[in-house]
Formats: sequence, C-alpha cells, structure tokens
Amino acid sequence: MTGEEMHALVERLYPLCRSITGDGVRATLDIVGEHLELAVHEVPTGTEVLDWTVPKEWNIRDAYIKDASGARVVDFRRSNLHVVGYSVPVDAVMTLEELRPHLHTLPEQPELVPYRTSYYARTWGFCLSQRTLDGMGEGPYEVVIDSTLADGHLTYAEHVVPGLSEEEVLISCHVCHPSLANDNLAGIAVATALARRLTGRLGRPRLTYRFLFAPGTIGAITWLARNRERAGRVRHGLTLACAGDPGRLTYKRSRRDDAEIDRAVTHVLADRPHDVLPFSPYGYDERQFCSPGFNLPVGSLTRTPYAGYPEYHTSGDNPDFVTPAALSDTLETLWQVTRVLEGNRSYLNLSPYGEPQLGRRGLYGSLGGRSDTKQAQMAMLWVLNLSDGEHSLLDIAQRAHMPFAALEDAARALSAAGLVKEIA
Amino acid sequence: MTGEEMHALVERLYPLCRSITGDGVRATLDIVGEHLELAVHEVPTGTEVLDWTVPKEWNIRDAYIKDASGARVVDFRRSNLHVVGYSVPVDAVMTLEELRPHLHTLPEQPELVPYRTSYYARTWGFCLSQRTLDGMGEGPYEVVIDSTLADGHLTYAEHVVPGLSEEEVLISCHVCHPSLANDNLAGIAVATALARRLTGRLGRPRLTYRFLFAPGTIGAITWLARNRERAGRVRHGLTLACAGDPGRLTYKRSRRDDAEIDRAVTHVLADRPHDVLPFSPYGYDERQFCSPGFNLPVGSLTRTPYAGYPEYHTSGDNPDFVTPAALSDTLETLWQVTRVLEGNRSYLNLSPYGEPQLGRRGLYGSLGGRSDTKQAQMAMLWVLNLSDGEHSLLDIAQRAHMPFAALEDAARALSAAGLVKEIA
Amino acid sequence: MTGEEMHALVERLYPLCRSITGDGVRATLDIVGEHLELAVHEVPTGTEVLDWTVPKEWNIRDAYIKDASGARVVDFRRSNLHVVGYSVPVDAVMTLEELRPHLHTLPEQPELVPYRTSYYARTWGFCLSQRTLDGMGEGPYEVVIDSTLADGHLTYAEHVVPGLSEEEVLISCHVCHPSLANDNLAGIAVATALARRLTGRLGRPRLTYRFLFAPGTIGAITWLARNRERAGRVRHGLTLACAGDPGRLTYKRSRRDDAEIDRAVTHVLADRPHDVLPFSPYGYDERQFCSPGFNLPVGSLTRTPYAGYPEYHTSGDNPDFVTPAALSDTLETLWQVTRVLEGNRSYLNLSPYGEPQLGRRGLYGSLGGRSDTKQAQMAMLWVLNLSDGEHSLLDIAQRAHMPFAALEDAARALSAAGLVKEIA
Repeated sequence: MTGEEMHALVERLYPLCRSITGDGVRATLDIVGEHLELAVHEVPTGTEVLDWTVPKEWNIRDAYIKDASGARVVDFRRSNLHVVGYSVPVDAVMTLEELRPHLHTLPEQPELVPYRTSYYARTWGFCLSQRTLDGMGEGPYEVVIDSTLADGHLTYAEHVVPGLSEEEVLISCHVCHPSLANDNLAGIAVATALARRLTGRLGRPRLTYRFLFAPGTIGAITWLARNRERAGRVRHGLTLACAGDPGRLTYKRSRRDDAEIDRAVTHVLADRPHDVLPFSPYGYDERQFCSPGFNLPVGSLTRTPYAGYPEYHTSGDNPDFVTPAALSDTLETLWQVTRVLEGNRSYLNLSPYGEPQLGRRGLYGSLGGRSDTKQAQMAMLWVLNLSDGEHSLLDIAQRAHMPFAALEDAARALSAAGLVKEIA
Repeated sequence: MTGEEMHALVERLYPLCRSITGDGVRATLDIVGEHLELAVHEVPTGTEVLDWTVPKEWNIRDAYIKDASGARVVDFRRSNLHVVGYSVPVDAVMTLEELRPHLHTLPEQPELVPYRTSYYARTWGFCLSQRTLDGMGEGPYEVVIDSTLADGHLTYAEHVVPGLSEEEVLISCHVCHPSLANDNLAGIAVATALARRLTGRLGRPRLTYRFLFAPGTIGAITWLARNRERAGRVRHGLTLACAGDPGRLTYKRSRRDDAEIDRAVTHVLADRPHDVLPFSPYGYDERQFCSPGFNLPVGSLTRTPYAGYPEYHTSGDNPDFVTPAALSDTLETLWQVTRVLEGNRSYLNLSPYGEPQLGRRGLYGSLGGRSDTKQAQMAMLWVLNLSDGEHSLLDIAQRAHMPFAALEDAARALSAAGLVKEIA
Repeated sequence: MTGEEMHALVERLYPLCRSITGDGVRATLDIVGEHLELAVHEVPTGTEVLDWTVPKEWNIRDAYIKDASGARVVDFRRSNLHVVGYSVPVDAVMTLEELRPHLHTLPEQPELVPYRTSYYARTWGFCLSQRTLDGMGEGPYEVVIDSTLADGHLTYAEHVVPGLSEEEVLISCHVCHPSLANDNLAGIAVATALARRLTGRLGRPRLTYRFLFAPGTIGAITWLARNRERAGRVRHGLTLACAGDPGRLTYKRSRRDDAEIDRAVTHVLADRPHDVLPFSPYGYDERQFCSPGFNLPVGSLTRTPYAGYPEYHTSGDNPDFVTPAALSDTLETLWQVTRVLEGNRSYLNLSPYGEPQLGRRGLYGSLGGRSDTKQAQMAMLWVLNLSDGEHSLLDIAQRAHMPFAALEDAARALSAAGLVKEIA
C-alpha cells in the first residue's frame, strides 16, 4: 500500500464511532478485513481476563444538546468526539447550570473538542469546544444520549503471517479511539500495509508475524489472558501508534531495555531523525505486554509520542493532521526492522586464524594501496572478525556502524565461499 | 533545631581551643551534651589503636609574642589559631630572625591567620597574618607558649538513636578543629540537630543511628579499633563537614561507589544544585572508614568541599561565614536521606500479569482520555512494574526519576489494596 | 637515538624499492641490522601460511615510459612509486590510448604520484602525476618494466630483547612500502630506536620484547603461522606505523577493547593531545593479530592514522613530511608505555584497617592543616586504599588520574616500609 492508500484508509475509518466495545470496532475490523484476512474474536461481557472483567458492550445511535429553538448546539452526528465514551443514556431537560458538570472543554484550545471516556465509572457527558460553550445561554436544553450499555462482547482481531518458525513477532495497535486520525487510525493503516507487504513479498518469512487489532488496555489484557502460552513465543514486539503525523519517529524501549527488538529498531533509526525514550509503564499496550509477569520484549514505535502534540486527543487529530509521506516513512522503517529481525543470524568464522585470503576467492578488490575501502569489503572484514560465536549480524552492525543489509550481504558471500557457516 | 539555633551553637562553640585531645574537646562535648545524651569515652595516652598510638594529651593556657614595649603582637587569647596545634612549651627571648622559622602566614591572603598543627612532630610555632608579620621589627621578642603535652586521654563521644534493627547508620563529624566555624562546628551543629529530630519524630526508626563526635583521623581510628565488630553493622554512613557555608551541597561517594548510601544521597540531591565527586582516599574520616580492610559504605556530605573556599583553614572561617539558611538546608537534605534509608524496601507485585485494575480499587482517576497523568498514578504504575523481587523503592525512584516519597506512598497504597507485599 | 638520528635512518631507507618480497626488503633489513642484531628469516615461495601461500618473489631493475625522442617521461629510477608493485615484465611499444588502462594518477592532487600494488593479480602498471599524464602526446611510447616474478623467498626479521619473563611484548612494523617515509619508514625508525633503548638502559627488562619487521599482511600471517605457540605468550602488542608526521598521536584499541595494553597506552596518552579509536578490522597488521582465532591484545599506535592525511600513499609522503620532533615524541610515548608495562604490578596492603601512620615512618609531611597535599602523599594514599588484591598500579593510576610513575614510586616506598607487598 502506498502512503496515499494508507491515508485513504484512515479517512474511511475516521467517521466510525469506536470505543473499547461495540459496533464501531466491528465496522472498523470489517474495513480492515477488506485488506487482510482477519480472525475476529468476540469475548462475552463478564469474562474474567487476568485481573479484569470484560465490560458491558456500549453502543450509541445519537446524542445532542438542543436549545429552545430546536437547534442542536452539540451534535454527535457532526463528531463522535462530542459524547464522552461509555456515557450512559440520558433524556432530560436541563439548564446550562445543571448541565455544566457534564461538559468538557479545552479552555486553552478554544476551537477544539476534547476526547474523553469513562469506561468504568457509570456517568455521562459531552465534549465541546470552549467557543461553543461560551456561546450557550442559560437554557433550558434538551439533553439526549441515545446509548445502550448492555451485555454483549468485546471484539478484537488477529492477522497472522505464518513463518518458518513458530517464534513470533507481535505488532499490536489499538482500535478503540473514535474520530482520532493519528491516534490510532494511522497505526491501524500502517499495520495493515505492513501485513500485506509481509505476505506479498519474498516468500514465507522466517518468523511468524501476528498483527493484533484490539481495544487499548482491556483488549491487550484479554488477548494476554487467552494467549498466555502463545505469549511465550513472542520473540519481538511493537505497539504501533501515532504513526502518521509529520513529526520524527520515536522509539520507546521495552522494559528489558536492550532486547533484540530494541537494538533492531534503534539500529534502523540511527540513520534518520529520531528519538529514543526509555521504558516507562505508561503509554500504549506495551504497559500490558511489559508487565513484570510477562515481561515480553515489546517496544513502542510512534512518530510524535502520545501527548506530545497539541492536537493529541482533540478534534484537531483529524485526517489532515496525518500525511501520506509520514505513513509511508513509518511503514518503510518498520519494513527495515522486519528485515533486521528476519536476517539476524550468527555465523562462525571457519578460518579464524588471520584473515582468509579474500582476493583469491574473488571477494576483494585486487589493486592495493588505494585508501578508499569499499563498504562491501569492510562488511566482510567485520563479519569475519566478529563471527566468533558470540556476535550476531546485528551485534556486528551496531559495532561497525554499518547498515545491516551490508553485513547480511557480506555474510552471504562469505558463506557461499565456505569461510563462515550459520550457527543460529 | 532551626537554622538560627544551629548557628547559635556554632557561635557558642567557636571560641574553644579544640585539638585532637585536651580540654577543648571536652568542653565542646559538654555543650553538645546539653542537646543530646552523649556517651563520652576517654582513651588513655599510649593505647594502641590499629596502626597508631593514642598521643599525649595537649592543653594550653596562654601563648604570645610580646615586643619590647610589652605589647602582645600575637596573642592566643585573641584567637586560638595563633598557636600551631600541639606546640610544645616555649619561653624565650628571640630576635625576629630567630623566630621566623616558627612563624606561619598566608602571603596571598595577608589579612588572614592560617590554621596549622604539628601533632606528631615535636615542635612549636605561631600563625599570624602577613600584615602583622610585615609590621614586626627586628625584636627582640618575648616568646611564650604555656602548653602541656603529657599523658592523658583522647576524648570522643557517641549518641545513639536506637532503631528496630541493629543495622546502623553512622554519622561522623570531626571535633578537633579550633576556631573554624564551617570546618567543623557546622558539621557538629547539623549532626546534633539531626540526632534530635530523629529522636523526636515518628517513633522508633527502623535503623539504628550512631552519631560519632571524634577528633579527625586518630579519633576515627580509635573508634574503629574499639568497635571492629560493630563496624560490621554499619549499613550506611556519612562523614559530615563544612556543612554551613553558602555554597552548594557536595557529595563524595564511598569507596564502593554505588552503595545504597551513594544512591540515596545522589537521589535526594538530584533536585537541588549540587556536585557529586568520586571517592578519593583524602578528605575527612571516610578515609578511615573506607580503608580497604573495613571498606564501609561511608560517603561524605559537605557544602563547598574542603580546600574549596578561600576561607578554608584560616581565620576567615568564622561564624559569619556560616549561615542559618545553609545549616538548615544541609539538615533538611540529610533528613531526606534518612527518609530514603528508612523507607527503602522491596515489594513483590502479587498481580504481575498485565496491570491490575486500579480504578476498581479506587486507586485510579476514572475519566480517561486526559493527557495529564498524575504523579501518584505514575508512581503506582512504576511500583507495580518493577516490583519483581529485583528492585527496591530506591531503584525504582532512580529509574522513574520520581521523588522517593511518591513511590513510598504508592507502595503503601498498593500494599493496602493487596496488590503488592513487602519482601525486604 | 635522537629524533635527528631516526630521521637520518628514514632518509637512508627512503630510496630503496621495497615490496612484500625481494631485495628491497633485504637491503632495508641490512640497514636496520646496523643498529640492531636481527634474526632474518627467509620463507620459500609456495610455503602455506594459514589461509595464504607465500607468493613469488618480485624484483625490479628498471622501468620507464620513453617517448619518441627517447626521453623517459616516466622513470623508475627517479621514484620507485612509478611502478605498480608486483608488476609483471613488459617490453612493448604502445600508443597512449593502449597504455592508458595501465596508468594511475590522482586527478585531485595533480602534482603527486600515487602508490599502487597488485600483489595477487598478474598485471602491470605505472603511477604518475596527473600533470605528467596531461603533458603526454598520443605516442607511440616504448614501455619497459624490467622485473622478475619468480620462486624465491619472503623475508622478515626479528629482534628480541630478552626479559626476566617469557611473556612477550610484540612491536610490529611493516617493511613492504617503497618510498613512503611516514608509512612506514618512520615506524621502522622508532621501533629501532625503542629496541636500542630497551637494550641499553636499566638492565634486563621484566618482559621480553619482540620487534617484528615484516611485510604487511602476508608477513604478519607468515609470522603467525610459524609462531602459533609463541603467539600465546604475547601479553601486549602494538603495530607501529605513521610514526613521524607532525599530527597528534592516535591509538586504536585492540579487539579486546580494554586489554592492559589499551589501558596502558590510553593512560600514557591522557596528558598529551591525542585521539583514541575503537578497534576495527582494517588498518595495519593488528588485523591479523586480532583475528578471532588469535585475538591477541594488540593495538595500533600511529600519529595521524592511515588515510588521514593528504600525503598518504603518495609521493608527498617523503622525508620532508616526517620531523625529528615527531619521531622523538612517538618514541618517548612508547617508552612511557613500556615503563607502564614493566612496572604494572599489584600490591597487597598489609595494614588495611584504617590508614597506617605514614608520618611515624617518615612518609608524610609533618605539618598538618595545609590544604596542598603533595602528589607523593596522594599517591601513597591511593596505593594503600586500592591495594586490596584486585587492583594493579595501572588500575590505581587510572582511577586516581595520576601519573603511573608517581604510583610506582609510592608503592616502592610503601613496600620498603613494609606496608605493602608485591603480589603479582
């Protein structure tokens, strides 16, 4: 998928009213399912998942605040951000004074509507711009939220690209946010594109890739509860979010701090403008994957990280905030990361005493004395020097400050010449 | 004790003529004893202590250089710095020429009188300002030091705040300097105030606190010689000196470099202007406590470190150089350090698979979507994430860059909710 | 040898036409042999050495490109750089067009003649300045290389300074470059001077010093092949090259990164302008010594490193580029390194509880209170504090940031006083 195709997917998903449960999630997965074969899971309300319980399912048809003239001052049909997520139904006539405790605005960003939820406390509310609030009279107002909160299901989906090995790479993105483009329709779009590319290219990968599209927190917890054994197969993982804003890429390390995924991503990022953050137990679902009982090697890849841009969790995070170029850049970066994970092997130098004579094997430029040594030759020298059973190609790439692909090519050439053999 | 009360103690102790033995030390301990219950130890001259021997006791009644007119050009009664510590008696008439080898000045600081001692070489001398020396004629002069150097005792004192555990925190300050305010009446005053606060507040502490008021070097060596077994109970220690000048706090690490005391002090200092120095085998009595046979985890807390200010070891180090605010700041810092040492425990997360649902237990704000996460919630997430049996609260505070107290509060709340249990 | 004497040696060696084999190497070793007793080794063509085979021996009498007027446009007798090393014989008449694929120039440095070789591909060629090439007409030219490539020998030499121990220090310098002064006549000259000084001074050294004068790559490989057992005795090693240019000293770490030689050299360099580079598997013969099968603790000492100066591998690297002062500075630095290697022992503090009383033993200034503590006293305190069986004098010098010699003196004094004893 091109950046434009990913952007088109973001735009198509944007109007849907997602939450941690409900038909908005199902509609989202239906659309993703047009691009990928998805296994959709429905987990009943009340199911115990780790320390949590699957909540009631929330759906909403309409909501508004109507003034005496009958005009909808706040209208769910214009933006689903206007209703606090998981609001219980309400149908009342209230003055502004009575309504005010249920109204959420951003006084510092008076044009923007905030995003608010209340999943586990039974309440209701509206989000609106400070400008709209400032224009509202004393009332009375007709206040309606036509929602249901009832036994149902939590919905999540998986797409698996089977590999030669059962060892898995987990790519997880949250699907619970309503009309917020960067957070996280961009993540969904990039994950979809990556899954397609992994399927389409280069034959069966070495590792198995599992894409998880699940609501934040409760979705990851549900998946972990139902896949405790499979979790042990996760060798590398990333949560993917805020993947389309124009800011630079940001990697947040796993709790392990120096897992292979941490080294792979930071190595790939080294050539681009980027930030690396230490692990912290807040953020996206790496919180769950990196809880101490699981301690999976899962980092988080974003562009500008959560809460790092003014549009974060507001109506300003709309499809205009997300660019095809940024989506594409995130995808290419992730693709490079998969190239490292796929290709990261260890070799043993079979001729470890002195340098083997590369020239005789056609592996070395024959005219000596020149001071420009080609990258391919340096890569061969590095692979030979460090292939002592204790260094993988990624280790060597990091120490040599060379592109991973150059070392992979060198190892392949040396292997073909019988100078090294793969050991892991 | 307030900063003003500590400063008053400094002023009261200032005129006494202390040395490594003698009545000046006893008078000093008498005054400290008005604030704290002290166990005063008298160790006879000739006692072998480690590689050393307790020296003869030195006392002095008077000393002067009198000119032909009978005027005291240099007068011990004006400042006890005028006599080289441990000077043997002298009563002679000498020309300036003869006297000169016994005179010590600071040509670069012509108004100040230096501080000099000669504990282990039998000699005598006077310290005076360069300005005074420059005004002295050829003489002759009457030169008198009315001192005694005779069998007696070395005097030191201890104050113990008993804790629930026999593990000890050692706070040591030297009491051997005569009229020098920052070095080390300030240290004595802050130690006194800390001991009082530890007794007065919060009930019996977890750890036992031992305050040692002893002459430098020989006093610490004497204590170590008489407490070889007890030294093994010292879990944390600090030498306290130069505690009242207006400069910023300085911590010198223990020989172990990363002992708990090193981490506790540097964590507390992180929020204030400060310096951290590596261990070196010079300075205060950490030299003795950190000798390789003992290798105790003892660092050194000062404000401007020794020899780091022009007034160091001169008559310029008088009570005006020491401020109530600085004394108070040192005390509060030390108090925070004791809070860390007292509170540093390890917990085990009893719900380590995924995050436990804090909201259900009233431990988490219920309105989601907001980007400002409160420190208390972050502290709970950190404690949960790292309470895996391998991290103490101080470890967590350092990794989270959060105040220790916030993590202690979080651990307490999580423990009350049954989510973690204390393991050490 | 003085800097001037080393420079004179460079000048004398400069005209000889060295290569990886042949009479130029023998003539070079003859001249070095006037200064040092050398064991010269001749290894027959065809001998298998590790993964390599000793090549045919190359010798050359004359070579030129003569124009129609009979003038030598390019003349081996003016500079041996004019012929590509290991050129096979040629005797032909050719147009410039035909000749051009065999001509090497430096278009960016039009006045300079490049240095090129083709040891393992049978070909021939001339190197000349771009300026000369630009002045050449269409031809025809008489093209002659009067060389022989035939069975013979590879020649290298060793000089050994026997020590009390069989543990060896390997100093290796390549002798295969023709008229290039810094790379590596300077290295040869400094190695020669160091060997003489080690023999001349201070009696038999503790360690055995082996100086290896061998052609690059194949020479080191030949030595390693014939000395596999002896290689295991190499405790420290350096390749020495580019030792005479006016740039600052550069140390490239061994593959082990923190071997004693790495710490010794970086400690000695700490007081001078210098650079330290990480290991990489390119450069001089540390490539061979640090191949993973041997992994010897061999670093590389140069001034400006290879390819780091515009004169590198050109006719600009002539004796004027090398200065007596730089040669002397490299020698003195190396000498200091040998002082560290010779003197690096470990001691055990026999009085480890508290500080021993240095004053009583005449080891400490007697007048206390002064803030300037002499380096000698600090050195004694450091040696006492860290002589716990886990730190060598070099470890202590690094931690104390003090000159190694000061710690050696301190250890000697403490040992004489019975306070420490040597343990390794």
